[in-house]
Amino acid sequence: MNERLDELSINTLRFISVDMVQQANSGHPGMPMGAAATAYTLWTRFVKFDPADPAWPDRDRFVLSAGHGCALLYALLHLTGFDLSMEELKRFRQWGSKTPGHPEFGRTPGVEATTGPLGQGIANAVGMAIAEASLAARFNRPEHTVVDHYTYALCGDGDLMEGVSAEAASLAGHLALGKLVVLYDDNHISIEGDTGLAFTEDPCARFAAYGWHVQSVADGNDVDAISSAIEAARAEPAKPSFIAVRTHIGFGSPHKHDDASAHGEPLGAEEVRLTKEALGWPTEPAFHVPAEVLAHFREALPRGDARHEAWDRRFAAYRASFPAESAEFERRMRGELPAGWDADLPAFGVGAIATREAGGQVMNAIAARVPELIGGSADLAPSTKTLLSGGGEFGPGDRGGRNLHFGVREHAMGAVVNGMAYHGGFVPYGSTFLIFSDYMRPPIRLAALGGLHVIHVFTHDSVGLGEDGPTHQPVEQLASLRAIPGAIVIRPADASETVAAWRFAMGAGPHPVLLALTRQKLPVLSPEQYPQVADGVVRGGYVLADAPGAPDAIVVASGSEVHLALEARETLAAEGVAVRVVSMPSTELFARQSLAYLQSVLAPGVPVVSVEAGVTLGWTTYLGQGSTAVGIDRFGASAPGETVLRELGMSAEHVAAALRGALGR
Amino acid sequence: MNERLDELSINTLRFISVDMVQQANSGHPGMPMGAAATAYTLWTRFVKFDPADPAWPDRDRFVLSAGHGCALLYALLHLTGFDLSMEELKRFRQWGSKTPGHPEFGRTPGVEATTGPLGQGIANAVGMAIAEASLAARFNRPEHTVVDHYTYALCGDGDLMEGVSAEAASLAGHLALGKLVVLYDDNHISIEGDTGLAFTEDPCARFAAYGWHVQSVADGNDVDAISSAIEAARAEPAKPSFIAVRTHIGFGSPHKHDDASAHGEPLGAEEVRLTKEALGWPTEPAFHVPAEVLAHFREALPRGDARHEAWDRRFAAYRASFPAESAEFERRMRGELPAGWDADLPAFGVGAIATREAGGQVMNAIAARVPELIGGSADLAPSTKTLLSGGGEFGPGDRGGRNLHFGVREHAMGAVVNGMAYHGGFVPYGSTFLIFSDYMRPPIRLAALGGLHVIHVFTHDSVGLGEDGPTHQPVEQLASLRAIPGAIVIRPADASETVAAWRFAMGAGPHPVLLALTRQKLPVLSPEQYPQVADGVVRGGYVLADAPGAPDAIVVASGSEVHLALEARETLAAEGVAVRVVSMPSTELFARQSLAYLQSVLAPGVPVVSVEAGVTLGWTTYLGQGSTAVGIDRFGASAPGETVLRELGMSAEHVAAALRGALGR
Repeated sequence: MNERLDELSINTLRFISVDMVQQANSGHPGMPMGAAATAYTLWTRFVKFDPADPAWPDRDRFVLSAGHGCALLYALLHLTGFDLSMEELKRFRQWGSKTPGHPEFGRTPGVEATTGPLGQGIANAVGMAIAEASLAARFNRPEHTVVDHYTYALCGDGDLMEGVSAEAASLAGHLALGKLVVLYDDNHISIEGDTGLAFTEDPCARFAAYGWHVQSVADGNDVDAISSAIEAARAEPAKPSFIAVRTHIGFGSPHKHDDASAHGEPLGAEEVRLTKEALGWPTEPAFHVPAEVLAHFREALPRGDARHEAWDRRFAAYRASFPAESAEFERRMRGELPAGWDADLPAFGVGAIATREAGGQVMNAIAARVPELIGGSADLAPSTKTLLSGGGEFGPGDRGGRNLHFGVREHAMGAVVNGMAYHGGFVPYGSTFLIFSDYMRPPIRLAALGGLHVIHVFTHDSVGLGEDGPTHQPVEQLASLRAIPGAIVIRPADASETVAAWRFAMGAGPHPVLLALTRQKLPVLSPEQYPQVADGVVRGGYVLADAPGAPDAIVVASGSEVHLALEARETLAAEGVAVRVVSMPSTELFARQSLAYLQSVLAPGVPVVSVEAGVTLGWTTYLGQGSTAVGIDRFGASAPGETVLRELGMSAEHVAAALRGALGR
Repeated sequence: MNERLDELSINTLRFISVDMVQQANSGHPGMPMGAAATAYTLWTRFVKFDPADPAWPDRDRFVLSAGHGCALLYALLHLTGFDLSMEELKRFRQWGSKTPGHPEFGRTPGVEATTGPLGQGIANAVGMAIAEASLAARFNRPEHTVVDHYTYALCGDGDLMEGVSAEAASLAGHLALGKLVVLYDDNHISIEGDTGLAFTEDPCARFAAYGWHVQSVADGNDVDAISSAIEAARAEPAKPSFIAVRTHIGFGSPHKHDDASAHGEPLGAEEVRLTKEALGWPTEPAFHVPAEVLAHFREALPRGDARHEAWDRRFAAYRASFPAESAEFERRMRGELPAGWDADLPAFGVGAIATREAGGQVMNAIAARVPELIGGSADLAPSTKTLLSGGGEFGPGDRGGRNLHFGVREHAMGAVVNGMAYHGGFVPYGSTFLIFSDYMRPPIRLAALGGLHVIHVFTHDSVGLGEDGPTHQPVEQLASLRAIPGAIVIRPADASETVAAWRFAMGAGPHPVLLALTRQKLPVLSPEQYPQVADGVVRGGYVLADAPGAPDAIVVASGSEVHLALEARETLAAEGVAVRVVSMPSTELFARQSLAYLQSVLAPGVPVVSVEAGVTLGWTTYLGQGSTAVGIDRFGASAPGETVLRELGMSAEHVAAALRGALGR
């Protein structure tokens, strides 16, 4: 290679980044300056991509886990020929630009994951590597390799300090994800100062303990050394690779090299000038790109085109030999469900069954027809009932299995599932107890922000779980998950609503769907008696049992409390009071309905009582004026579930009393 | 020692636990059966405690991080003579008992931390060890050692899989917490089956990479081997110790030994009988305690008494030589603030200042008089402004410092701060951006559940932070933190409210207080113009600017949006509309006020518009009928803060329009 051209190219990345931050008067120049050579090496010598088709399924995935360094990524995308103009670079961090302050999936061509909250990107990359291995196992055939790509991540010390990356790295080592390569931008600087202030562990030894292949590169500007390490990493098929590259934050800046001040603020005009001078770069104009550098980076276009075309040829041959498989692959990559995917959904008759149990049956009925439904639990599958029976286990020795064992790693589970969704080709799911959704809020939020279609099955959804006590009993989780824009919480009242909830979840589009299911048994709302259930769930709320004429009062309830509402309705009927029961499995979906529909359900002017075994926060918001919220505005307690529910006011008697109160009786 | 007595004692622990679970027909027998010898060795040979005074300040701390094994802990507490009767053991997991399904701080004498959500206990233990080291540095004097105790934790594989424990362990290694000893109950079984399904890393090598002193014990029933390892751990002053003890879940059960089914369900009457027979234990009666075993365990009473008395003598001598120090120690242990602690609180006049900046000044004014205010940031102190200037740094070489560097480890920060609060003697604080409160919800929840007085400073509290974009802009965090029962969120409108918020936070009692502060500058509400601020904040909401007569409408706002409300009030005044502005820094505190006060602030029948730069969820709940919520029910965007606020409707014009709308104008 041409060393001068390497250096020019690396400095171009540095100074585009520096100029972007300077122009925005906001951002993080230090990481791009230090990691430019690493990124350059990776992007010009290794990463397989086609700038003309950022969605090419067999591209390598690259995740900038240290998302604050996104100016570097935007510079790479522009220079290599993605649809990201220099004008967009100049609009870094401005309203409506394609170059937001941290990378956002869906906003910028070539950005594979929304990053910034540290640790997430590494865990996303683990999910992507799982996705690749799973697709390769399902689709590749002898002499027909249509899935064969690497996943790369570039991370910083902050990523490594976050627990989510530790969880994901342990899982990746266990799963022996040989096509995952993580580069660590080891610049020894965090926001508060030298990493020696808080981070003196040996990350290489730690990753080795996880079962990773580990290397170090002493000089982060040594393109050949970085290159050799990446080659060695790719050559190790049985272990994920970790490469610590010693770099210098703010490289080249006379006053900010190796200084925390380079991390998160512009260098300042004067220091920009001094840095350009120090590295032999023209001080004017800003955003300077030498013609030979642009030409060099733009070799990515013909290279990508050729690779893509070769793959197209391979895929054409595959299609000819394996029409069903190729059709399935393409369908999955389009994110479409197979025709008839819901043909075997069970119907539940009379009796009683826990919604977690019903959910397990529904999932299995779907999974039999939807091969892309793949996921697992954070070590609670026997309790969450989310095992796909006969699905096999995805493990180090078997990539064809569909059941993942995430271990007791809820946070990584959320981020890994996101990574599978980012990758494409899956409807991935996770599951744990509802209470532990608290451990994984950041990835749920990022799924909502990134518009990822992921499903989480959260069981043991109220104090009704009983003896495990308040540490395990959710009370505020439903409200706090509903607060996340774009996330859709559904808490079905019984097995029939669970069927409808899963049907909705599968086709929900770019949203995470969070199902809240019970540990305890609930009576079934049979389709014969309640034919409106299936349509009603999709609307979020609907009239389940009406008053003969105009209702005197309305009870709105979700999940297990719907049955208390039905019982209270009987009680009040005996007192001559006509009560309508509204089942409200999803306040978010209900809020999307037309005003006419809302008024047809809630009947303006009629007093409303809401019932949910959780905090009352939010219920009056959705129900409007004159509503009374029955809920649990305290922590639960350890005792048998029925006792806890009763002691905390979750009884038909209490609901009936609230109705009488609302009616002034 | 007497081997037969050891074995009898260990089996007593096993079978009390087994019988508790069997009687409750619920619980986790497997861990107590496997870890009984470890716990026995620790509790009879090492842990320093006085059952007659569970609050003795210089006791060793023991945390059962694997909280599901609490039957074992309750058995130990009963047998060693804590105020926990056999009747309470028989009421395991029943309503109102002292033996809930997972250990709850404050409910059971001798329980040092609320555990169950995995990983938290290890991190709590790290906080306790920090607390001990900090107190020792401050109070011990040559020949006067009044603080000198160990912190022990017993954990399982689930604890080690959770990221929070990884974060905390890395921090503990960095901090060289030599008096922390973690025992790992290495039973190779998790809920889904063998830990080989998901957890094949080498935890010993990992902890060594963190800088821990690491040992293994091959036979978890070998009391002497366990004992030797603990001795060696204690003898290592410069590193925390990790001891992996190979055990067997469900030890002794003919059918459930080494089986996942022993984890979380009763053995069943028949298997209980078979297990007792297998281990040579009388099958009847249940809860059998051989007299010699009870006598043996109860030696803890005189032993504890003697140790406590020796400490009392040491402390008396200390008091004589160091009256000021001893008084401070006792005051801190009582959890009382020093007289005059708030004498130097700053007053802010006119001008504009970010509330994070004002908060930093207030903290420092408090810290100068309150030595127990100790904490730090998750690598964001320069941004959150939470450095205690002149406070020094708590690090491996200096235990006297008051500034902790948590690193980019929000989750561990939350749990470590909880550990300091559990320990006693501190008003500990943490700080990060509000968005990253999502990374630490589990410890915030546990602080609320355990009634811990901790303070978190969450800055960059809205989309007003600007360019960092939606990954960093909180919108749903305020609502979702308010949803946690017992947690108190305060979002001050300016510097003056920030003073009042901190004053409240310091004396808040057994509650976590979460302060939401701005990145951007806000005009100061000067005490001259707004003398009601100080009292108003404590009430959660108050009339900041009133209409001359009866108000036509009311705007309720929090934080930075209060200024939009004031501006809108001026606009409408010019239109002849009288608007009252209510500042509502804390909806939770407001909800505690009398109905009369609420009505004096909100004036029933008067239309209300709420304004907050976050999701509207919850606002109508607090404001009641007829209110309109102005907020941001979507994710933010990357752009300068003023632009984002304006584009998302956070403007005085928009508030004025909402007021007109509410009035039908």
